[in-house]
Amino acid sequence: MHHSPNHIGIIPDGNRRWAIQNGLNKEDGYEYGLRPGLELLRAAKKRNVREITYYGFTVDNCKRPKEQVEAFANACLKAVEMIKNEDVSLYVVGNTQSSCFPTQLLPLTKQRDNSTDKMRVNFLVNYSWEWDMKNNWASRDIPRIDLVIRWGGMRRLSGFLPLQTVYSDIYVEPTLWPNFEERHLDEALEWYSRQDVTLGG
Amino acid sequence: MHHSPNHIGIIPDGNRRWAIQNGLNKEDGYEYGLRPGLELLRAAKKRNVREITYYGFTVDNCKRPKEQVEAFANACLKAVEMIKNEDVSLYVVGNTQSSCFPTQLLPLTKQRDNSTDKMRVNFLVNYSWEWDMKNNWASRDIPRIDLVIRWGGMRRLSGFLPLQTVYSDIYVEPTLWPNFEERHLDEALEWYSRQDVTLGG
Repeated sequence: MHHSPNHIGIIPDGNRRWAIQNGLNKEDGYEYGLRPGLELLRAAKKRNVREITYYGFTVDNCKRPKEQVEAFANACLKAVEMIKNEDVSLYVVGNTQSSCFPTQLLPLTKQRDNSTDKMRVNFLVNYSWEWDMKNNWASRDIPRIDLVIRWGGMRRLSGFLPLQTVYSDIYVEPTLWPNFEERHLDEALEWYSRQDVTLGG
Repeated sequence: MHHSPNHIGIIPDGNRRWAIQNGLNKEDGYEYGLRPGLELLRAAKKRNVREITYYGFTVDNCKRPKEQVEAFANACLKAVEMIKNEDVSLYVVGNTQSSCFPTQLLPLTKQRDNSTDKMRVNFLVNYSWEWDMKNNWASRDIPRIDLVIRWGGMRRLSGFLPLQTVYSDIYVEPTLWPNFEERHLDEALEWYSRQDVTLGG
């Protein structure tokens, strides 16, 4: 029986490794992750995925060198701006209380639109699983994730929504995120369609 | 730089599939998961692993047919009895309030020995991530897991200690658990030694 995921989690890892491989500074990699983010969104929409959650950046990431922090915060802002134009229902979750949270995104954190028919896109910005747990599961409006796709080859969740990913199937694509291709999504969906969904039963 | 995991999480999946492949009833598979559990423990001890946590069975598993529930609860009891003889510090975590929890194991749930030099072995019995969260992180005495090894080919955590596994590297062995071999552990350790530990940084 073939089936499709309603909700996909995206871990877009490998920007810094890609930058180094391409003779750039580490912090220059994030800019090259923007186009993939938009392409993935459009590709998922065409394939009737109902919801996507992007792992933007984390509270821990903010401890990196200043150039990197500025670069990924900027890339995140631009990504959200691009997605706003895509006729989707956008929701941002993260720790808004720290200086690392871009104030321009505050309005998007207020409330999830529960009555929409549009595709939903959630964006984790200055997120931390500890912050999430300490605040009574602050991300609770984001529902269960069926499939997590991670680019960049690491086989781990790295603190990505621990309670929404308890039953997720995890697909790891070795390609670094800036080299995203639509076929990665197709391969992940094809693999997922062959998994047995049990939800722990 | 090569490194070793202090704490390994074990998801011993595939007992039922193994039983069917071997012409047995599903519930007969669990018995064949006992020897592997002990072999793995001894192999890990020899390799200086400090702590192991076994994913025994879950509250959700208890919704399966009665023969299966009886079979895995029994196998779990026997596994704990075997491990007791191994000169390790044993700790059991799970929902003791439901009829599915074997009363014989109650004494082992009381308290983790914090002063031991022995290898630690934790066993999840009638565990549920929802129960864990609703009870103020009931499993909190079990520390962070460095490496999760799952047998049986599924690439998912299935509710296994969501807050201890946030940064875990996840190694999936396709072999079904009753066909465990020591070299699976070696392959997982070898793979782990090549991973970059960042803890989200």
